[in-house]
Amino acid sequence: MDFAFTRIKGGVGAPQGFLTSAVTCGIKNPAATRLDLALVVSEDACASAGTFTTNRVKAAPVKVSQAHLRQGDLRAIIANSGNANACTGVQGVHDAKTMCAAVAKALGLKRTEIGVCSTGVIGLPMPMMRLEPKIPELVAGLSLKNGGDFAAAILTSDTCAKEVAITLDIDGHRVRIGGCVKGAGMISPSMATMLCFITTDASISSAALRQVVLECVEESFNRITIDGDMSTNDTVLALANGRSGMPPIRRKSPAYKQFRQALGYVMLELAKAVVRDGERVTKFVTVEVKDARTYLDAKKVAEAVCKSALVKSSWNGGDPNWGRIIHAVGYSRARIVEGFVDIHIGGKAACLGGLQAPTPMDELRAVVAQPEFTITISLNQGSADYAMYASDLSREYIEFNRSEYSYW
Amino acid sequence: MDFAFTRIKGGVGAPQGFLTSAVTCGIKNPAATRLDLALVVSEDACASAGTFTTNRVKAAPVKVSQAHLRQGDLRAIIANSGNANACTGVQGVHDAKTMCAAVAKALGLKRTEIGVCSTGVIGLPMPMMRLEPKIPELVAGLSLKNGGDFAAAILTSDTCAKEVAITLDIDGHRVRIGGCVKGAGMISPSMATMLCFITTDASISSAALRQVVLECVEESFNRITIDGDMSTNDTVLALANGRSGMPPIRRKSPAYKQFRQALGYVMLELAKAVVRDGERVTKFVTVEVKDARTYLDAKKVAEAVCKSALVKSSWNGGDPNWGRIIHAVGYSRARIVEGFVDIHIGGKAACLGGLQAPTPMDELRAVVAQPEFTITISLNQGSADYAMYASDLSREYIEFNRSEYSYW
Repeated sequence: MDFAFTRIKGGVGAPQGFLTSAVTCGIKNPAATRLDLALVVSEDACASAGTFTTNRVKAAPVKVSQAHLRQGDLRAIIANSGNANACTGVQGVHDAKTMCAAVAKALGLKRTEIGVCSTGVIGLPMPMMRLEPKIPELVAGLSLKNGGDFAAAILTSDTCAKEVAITLDIDGHRVRIGGCVKGAGMISPSMATMLCFITTDASISSAALRQVVLECVEESFNRITIDGDMSTNDTVLALANGRSGMPPIRRKSPAYKQFRQALGYVMLELAKAVVRDGERVTKFVTVEVKDARTYLDAKKVAEAVCKSALVKSSWNGGDPNWGRIIHAVGYSRARIVEGFVDIHIGGKAACLGGLQAPTPMDELRAVVAQPEFTITISLNQGSADYAMYASDLSREYIEFNRSEYSYW
Repeated sequence: MDFAFTRIKGGVGAPQGFLTSAVTCGIKNPAATRLDLALVVSEDACASAGTFTTNRVKAAPVKVSQAHLRQGDLRAIIANSGNANACTGVQGVHDAKTMCAAVAKALGLKRTEIGVCSTGVIGLPMPMMRLEPKIPELVAGLSLKNGGDFAAAILTSDTCAKEVAITLDIDGHRVRIGGCVKGAGMISPSMATMLCFITTDASISSAALRQVVLECVEESFNRITIDGDMSTNDTVLALANGRSGMPPIRRKSPAYKQFRQALGYVMLELAKAVVRDGERVTKFVTVEVKDARTYLDAKKVAEAVCKSALVKSSWNGGDPNWGRIIHAVGYSRARIVEGFVDIHIGGKAACLGGLQAPTPMDELRAVVAQPEFTITISLNQGSADYAMYASDLSREYIEFNRSEYSYW
């Protein structure tokens, strides 16, 4: 590791000056008792940044959060699970704005200082009758906890809360970065889906925060795939309140690189946690593509391999099937030469120069039998690399996703 | 139907002047008794055309057939099942050439007049010791049958032979078109994969045949998807021997359009048969995209929907889940406006203007419970249409593809 930081407990509540709260509204199910509405607020004004799904069908909260970010920096985020507020038309946008307005009123902020995120089922109206009356309780509950209540309230079919927090020194100041994520739903019935929240008490300009978030998302959340489907709600929101007292990080300041590495670590850990917690996932596979002609060629190969149903099925079965991998390499549209392709599974040669390698099949099978392993594909065409993180494809995934859900 | 033709029995042996034969070599399994090596030969010189996989990892027979087509027209095709001769390097190309040379010698033709196709497992050398000695018997067995032996010998994990033959009158001459296809393997373990053979006694210039084959493949085989994986061996080969005595069809002659419709019918029927016979497939779904801004936009939407694991899982479960369909429409990269999208399932509205339609869910569920149904996605942005044919994704597909195979 070429930079120093320490993992600490907690998530979005870990950095100084961030308050969190969560309540139960019964959004999906009026009788449910689990947390489903959460709030994170900074005591001070923040720099903020967001990245959003590129799906042309965008959920109402995505549209509203994007609009608020265009009008200035956010300082608080309200998020709910149980209903994605997607495919809900004009009423959905009205409901998302109402959620922001209610929080703003209770906190004495502007509506445009509030971000809003939803995750859950698509196509059903938000149950505002149950949600809106709970907002005063939500705001009243704000406290300096470590954010575990927030992380719990955004889960849907996830099996566990996924939080990361670290501390590091920048320019002699102790800085904290915290984050939490919900995924899993990426692969579940009509769920929409990946939400990630990052807080930090670092001081950073809005421009630099936007840049660093983009860069880190490209190297984390844009590199994971469970089923290749992209949600209508995918959102990453980051708030930086400067409470650490450090001088502001700017895009060209030396501290930028240090902060980028730290944030990159937090996001990559969260992204990997999403894959590991993918519903009915049994394998976590790192696919490294090496020595491609260009970065884009390397990326195309990694994506084709990680999204191939045939390759993912073979991982599920513990089958070290290099034939399926090279066939996905071939149709990736990257510039490759069959006779130059080497494939290593867990560091052992499976295919050399496009032909079967002499490694005994039992050795390869032992690697793929493990819950986590790495596949390295060397194209031997140049010097560009790319890595992706993928799950297998299981019968249980289909079983889970073929069933109708009670909300119909 | 705006043109007249009659379905007749048989496949590649149905047109006049085509001889077929098939023998058992035990290519995959020396002890097996099923046919696995086939030959079709025209008594007369032919015009010929081929389309091949765009996978950059191409099987040896693909490379050899492409080379032979560049040097002139084919007159015979040798095809085997059980071994794809893919990822077999220089030896594989040598073996494919040897297959052609042996047929050419026995028939008194040039080696470059022979096409060669293989389907089966990837990465294992062709068992030429078992195959080559059988070629004299293969040639000796040539007869004027209807081609059923040929169609049977090319199957791998297919559950049935897939043949189509028709007869029609062009310019007062009785013309026949026959074809057979093997698929299924597209979705099976390391199999490679889709082969289609077309024969006709129509008289057509080589240039016109190449053009019409390209056009018809675009509207048939390029519009089906089972698992989105593209094989290293996919091939369509067509031979036209002119035995019907008609004046040659040229690209601008009036008969071209008539022949194109007839060949288009044969190829589309064969392509649909591949989807229906896809291993572990339980649904045959036609996805029609209407009123897109451009043909490419319509195609992107159809492909995104037909390749979505979430959508295909819901079909498997008989779930009329329009939320998943519109979310795939959204990430297709086509130019769409959410509020303009209508989705009909079996002619019944599921989504209107991006919102849930009032059709009772039981009516939609009854449609999706059927083995074949149509989903119509109207983008209401222009006038371009596109249709695709897809299967569902089943637990049994994963079960079938997760298992190791005995050839390892």
